[in-house]
Amino acid sequence: MSDVVQVYGSSNSGNCLKVKWVCDCLTIPYLWTEVDSFDGSTRTPDFLALNPAGQVPVVQLANGRVLAQSNAIIVHLAEGSDLVPADAYARAKMFEWLFWEQYSHEPAIAVRIARKYYLKQRDEDIDPALMTKGNAALARMEQHLNAALYLVGPALSLADIALLAYTRAASRGGFDLASYPSVVAWIARTESQLGLESIASG
Amino acid sequence: MSDVVQVYGSSNSGNCLKVKWVCDCLTIPYLWTEVDSFDGSTRTPDFLALNPAGQVPVVQLANGRVLAQSNAIIVHLAEGSDLVPADAYARAKMFEWLFWEQYSHEPAIAVRIARKYYLKQRDEDIDPALMTKGNAALARMEQHLNAALYLVGPALSLADIALLAYTRAASRGGFDLASYPSVVAWIARTESQLGLESIASG
Repeated sequence: MSDVVQVYGSSNSGNCLKVKWVCDCLTIPYLWTEVDSFDGSTRTPDFLALNPAGQVPVVQLANGRVLAQSNAIIVHLAEGSDLVPADAYARAKMFEWLFWEQYSHEPAIAVRIARKYYLKQRDEDIDPALMTKGNAALARMEQHLNAALYLVGPALSLADIALLAYTRAASRGGFDLASYPSVVAWIARTESQLGLESIASG
Repeated sequence: MSDVVQVYGSSNSGNCLKVKWVCDCLTIPYLWTEVDSFDGSTRTPDFLALNPAGQVPVVQLANGRVLAQSNAIIVHLAEGSDLVPADAYARAKMFEWLFWEQYSHEPAIAVRIARKYYLKQRDEDIDPALMTKGNAALARMEQHLNAALYLVGPALSLADIALLAYTRAASRGGFDLASYPSVVAWIARTESQLGLESIASG
């Protein structure tokens, strides 16, 4: 058992990077153990003992207890910080975006990035529904960000951090971010807040 | 504007029933407006003005403000009640299950129920990955419930309510719940806590 948070994650996974960014942003000490989610490392008996769902990221907290699901992890780590709005309704809207991200955004955009950019599949071999669903998610963000600097209220929250993870990499999945100018401006704004370099050209 | 919670939902949707069950359980006054999610009612301009994501459930709170995403809604409504563990780690585990439900359970089990039971599609026309993924989700629950009465700690929480919604109806999607005896016992236990009649024969 360590006295810092142990993060098991893949540097190629936006879900895992969310955890890194929150730790960095809040100066929470952590140790990063790289786990490749493409080579079967998340299906070994040792890993399944840590997370029976067989997914990264998973963290072992300083008290030894284990927590999975990227958005559950970042909520737990950031509770009480400025990244979680204090107002009850703003907080609920943050959760609305976090659940929407995992249901309507990640399963299209992250999956298309994985297939096209990491697994090098050809466009014609990728389910066309991923492009349709991903563009619908980007359009939903664009609509909101046309009239707002951040996803919830006037400042950065976990909603922005969670949505940034795969939105900033969407071009790797074949999505044309130029069609979503308010999203592009929000990506730059959020990356700047987190001290991240742009990957837009990637 | 009403002085009670307005719930827009489909009685056929487990995601919507979660909201009803939490309101009933906590005796929160609400008005239910039936919205059919299969006939285009969630894509009308009026509905999209309420929820740009075009999904039920969506609620209008007593102060007129709108909230979407079933799990975000039930967390907001139940905050401070016995349905949300007070301990920070137990609370985080509850969120782990809530996010897992929307990512790994609902997209397989609820979708297969919709196709087979409501849309009357033939088994051979349904993506076989839904059966595989749904059974993996049920096996994950079975593993946990082999050693626990509820999903988080010793008592009912929102995790049980959220997972009950589609797990109790899994047989309508063609899943063989008899293979998961601890899940079956948990369904009966949770239904009893909520005062629900079994739909297992359905």
